[in-house]
Amino acid sequence: MSAPIVTLTTDFGLADGYVAAMKGVLLSRCPAARLVDVSHEIAPGAIAAAAFVLGQAAFHFPAGTVHLVVVDPGVGSARRGLACEIDGHRFVCPDNGLLHWAARGRSVRAFALERPERWRAEPSAVFHGRDVFAPVAAFLACGGELAELGGELAGDSLVELALPPPARAGEGSSATVVHVDRFGNLITDLRVDASLAGRARVEIADRTVPFARTYSDVEPGELVALRGSSGLLEVACNGGSAARVLGAAVGLVIILRTSP
Amino acid sequence: MSAPIVTLTTDFGLADGYVAAMKGVLLSRCPAARLVDVSHEIAPGAIAAAAFVLGQAAFHFPAGTVHLVVVDPGVGSARRGLACEIDGHRFVCPDNGLLHWAARGRSVRAFALERPERWRAEPSAVFHGRDVFAPVAAFLACGGELAELGGELAGDSLVELALPPPARAGEGSSATVVHVDRFGNLITDLRVDASLAGRARVEIADRTVPFARTYSDVEPGELVALRGSSGLLEVACNGGSAARVLGAAVGLVIILRTSP
Amino acid sequence: MSAPIVTLTTDFGLADGYVAAMKGVLLSRCPAARLVDVSHEIAPGAIAAAAFVLGQAAFHFPAGTVHLVVVDPGVGSARRGLACEIDGHRFVCPDNGLLHWAARGRSVRAFALERPERWRAEPSAVFHGRDVFAPVAAFLACGGELAELGGELAGDSLVELALPPPARAGEGSSATVVHVDRFGNLITDLRVDASLAGRARVEIADRTVPFARTYSDVEPGELVALRGSSGLLEVACNGGSAARVLGAAVGLVIILRTSP
Repeated sequence: MSAPIVTLTTDFGLADGYVAAMKGVLLSRCPAARLVDVSHEIAPGAIAAAAFVLGQAAFHFPAGTVHLVVVDPGVGSARRGLACEIDGHRFVCPDNGLLHWAARGRSVRAFALERPERWRAEPSAVFHGRDVFAPVAAFLACGGELAELGGELAGDSLVELALPPPARAGEGSSATVVHVDRFGNLITDLRVDASLAGRARVEIADRTVPFARTYSDVEPGELVALRGSSGLLEVACNGGSAARVLGAAVGLVIILRTSP
Repeated sequence: MSAPIVTLTTDFGLADGYVAAMKGVLLSRCPAARLVDVSHEIAPGAIAAAAFVLGQAAFHFPAGTVHLVVVDPGVGSARRGLACEIDGHRFVCPDNGLLHWAARGRSVRAFALERPERWRAEPSAVFHGRDVFAPVAAFLACGGELAELGGELAGDSLVELALPPPARAGEGSSATVVHVDRFGNLITDLRVDASLAGRARVEIADRTVPFARTYSDVEPGELVALRGSSGLLEVACNGGSAARVLGAAVGLVIILRTSP
Repeated sequence: MSAPIVTLTTDFGLADGYVAAMKGVLLSRCPAARLVDVSHEIAPGAIAAAAFVLGQAAFHFPAGTVHLVVVDPGVGSARRGLACEIDGHRFVCPDNGLLHWAARGRSVRAFALERPERWRAEPSAVFHGRDVFAPVAAFLACGGELAELGGELAGDSLVELALPPPARAGEGSSATVVHVDRFGNLITDLRVDASLAGRARVEIADRTVPFARTYSDVEPGELVALRGSSGLLEVACNGGSAARVLGAAVGLVIILRTSP
C-alpha cells in the first residue's frame, strides 16, 4: 500500500500558524500521511467557494484519499461534524454545505462525528480544525473506519448550498456564475459539451459572446465562452479578466443559445 | 524511524524562488526529509509575527521535528546564527528574537552556528537561509548533533523581543495584543482559562466586551472575548474582523475583569 | 533510489483548485512522487517572471528532479509542448520562453510533446497543465524517457524571451532589471563578483549607489548595490524596498562602474 494522502482545504490563509498546527496534529497521529494543500486562500467563511474548489480538485486524487475541509464559521456551535465517503474518497468537514459540489450526482455515505475519544483531549471551542477534524482525518488515513466515528446519517440530510438550479430560458439555457477564478474567468453551474464551439453563443450583461474552443480563438482582450476544464460553461477574456471587463460576480445569470 | 520532518517559516513570500531554493538544498542534503511549510507570508522583516506563528504551530509537530525559521533582516551582519533544542524539537534560525514564544516557559539548549564546514561552500552574504540555515537544518534532520555545529550558549543569552509583560490593572489584568490573525482576531499575551466564559468581560478601546465560549455565542457583527486556540485571551467579531471594527493593531493594551 | 521529486511552478494562484488538480493527477500516475511547490504566485501570464524564478530555484534540487512549469496563455493554440533535459534535470512546459534562464549557458536536449497516449484521455483545450504536462511529468518521474514523448528538437529552436543583453556602457557595464522580488530588490541580468564590494558603484535613476557586501552595510533606508544570491547584480534598500524608493520596475537599465 502506498502512503495515505490527506488533502487540506481551509480559509485559514498562510500568514498564521493554524494550517501548520493542523499538519502537526496529522503527522503526530498518522506519521505516514502525505499532506497536499488544495487551498488555504478561501476567503474567510466563504463556504460556497471552498465547496467549488474542492469539487474541482478532489476526484483527481487517487481513491482512498482523505480530504480535510475546514471553513467553519459555526465552530463551537451545534453544527454537526461529518465524515463521508463519496466515490471511494473520504471527506472530513463541518456539515455546512462544503460537500455540495463533491457530492452532486454521486452517492454519499455520511457519519456524524460523535466520539470524542477520536479527537484531541479537551478540544478548544474555537479550533475544531486542529482538535476534531484533523485527528479524525488522521484516524481515517491510518486505516480507521467511518463507522467508528459516530452514527450513520441519511445522505440527503446534509446541509446544501442554496443555489438557483440551471433552467431553460426561452430557446436557451440559463446558467448561474458560481465561481470567479484567479484569472477572472466566470464559471457557471451548467455542464456543456465542447462540440458547441462555433455553434453557440452566450448572452451576458447586454453582450453576446461566441462559444469557442479555447481562449486564443478570439483576439486579445475579447470575451469568449467555452467549456471549462471541469466541463462547465465559462466566460473568459483572452489575456484579461472577464470579471473585470463585465463587472461580474458570483450569482450573475447568463443565457446560452445554440445558433440556429 | 519515520522520515524526519523539517518545517519552514520565512518572510520570503511565494512569488520568488527563495523558498524553493532552500527546499532544494534541504532535499539535496537530506533526501529523506519531509518538508512542511508553516508560513512564508510573514511580512518582510516582521520578526515578532514570525515568532508568534512559530509558537502557535511548532509543538503540534512530533518530537524530533526540525524547525527552520528565516526572518533575517540582519543577514550578513554580525548577528549570530542559532541551533536550539526546546522540548525535544530543534530550531535553526538567526538570533534575533524568533524563538521568543517557542522558548517562553521552556528550557532551551542553544548553540552558535560557527562551523562553516556544515554550510554551503562560499555562502552568499545575503542569503543565509539557503547557504547556512538550510544546510544546518538538513544536517540535524539526517541525524547530526547540535554540538557539532558550534559552541554552546547560555540559554538566557538569546535575543528576546521587547514586549510589555502582562500586569495587574486595578482589579483586572492587562493584556497586550501581540498578533492579529487573518480573521482580524486580536490575540493577546495573557493566558486565560475557558471557565471565565459568562463570568468575565474585557475593556478595549472604550468598549466592554463579554467573555464567551465561542464566536457564535454573540450575534453576528458583535464583539466577543474568548480563550483562543493557544490558550490566550483574544477578542474577535462573530462573522467579521475585530481589528477592523476597533481599528486595533498589535500593541493595544486591554483589560480583563472578572465579573463580581 | 530515493523518491522522485517533481517541482511545480505556475501562475494559477492557490485560491482555486487548479494546482491541486495537477497534484492529484501527478500522484495518481506516479504515487511515489514527492511534490514541491516552487511558486504559484506568478502573475497571470507572466512568463518572464516564471522563467526567472525557475532559474533561481531549479538547480538547487537534486539531479533527476522533474520541474513542471505551467504559465501558458497560449493553451490550446498551436504553441508546442516541451520536455527537456538540462544538466541532469528534466523540465516539462509549454514552449514560450519559460526555460530562458534555466537554459542560459547550459546544454539542452529538447523533445516535443507529441504522443497523446502519454496524456490524459480527451484533454481539455483550456487546461494542459492538468491534462498534458502533469501526466508527462509523472511519466518522467516514474522512470520514463524523454524520447518516448515525441521527436527531438534542435536546442536552439526553443522560444526565447526578448531581453536586451548586458552591454559595455562607456567605462562601465549596463545591466537591465529583469526581476523585482518581494522585498523590492531590483535584480539585473549582469553577473558580478563579490570582490567589487567597496570598489564599485551603480548609477540608477539619477542616483549613485555604493556596491557593498550586504544590506546592513548601509544605513537603514539607504540604497545599496550588491552581488545577489544568484550571483547577479542587484540594487536593494536596507530595511525597505528599492523598487518603491526608486519607482523602478523590470526593464530599467542601470550602469555599473568600477571605482578608479
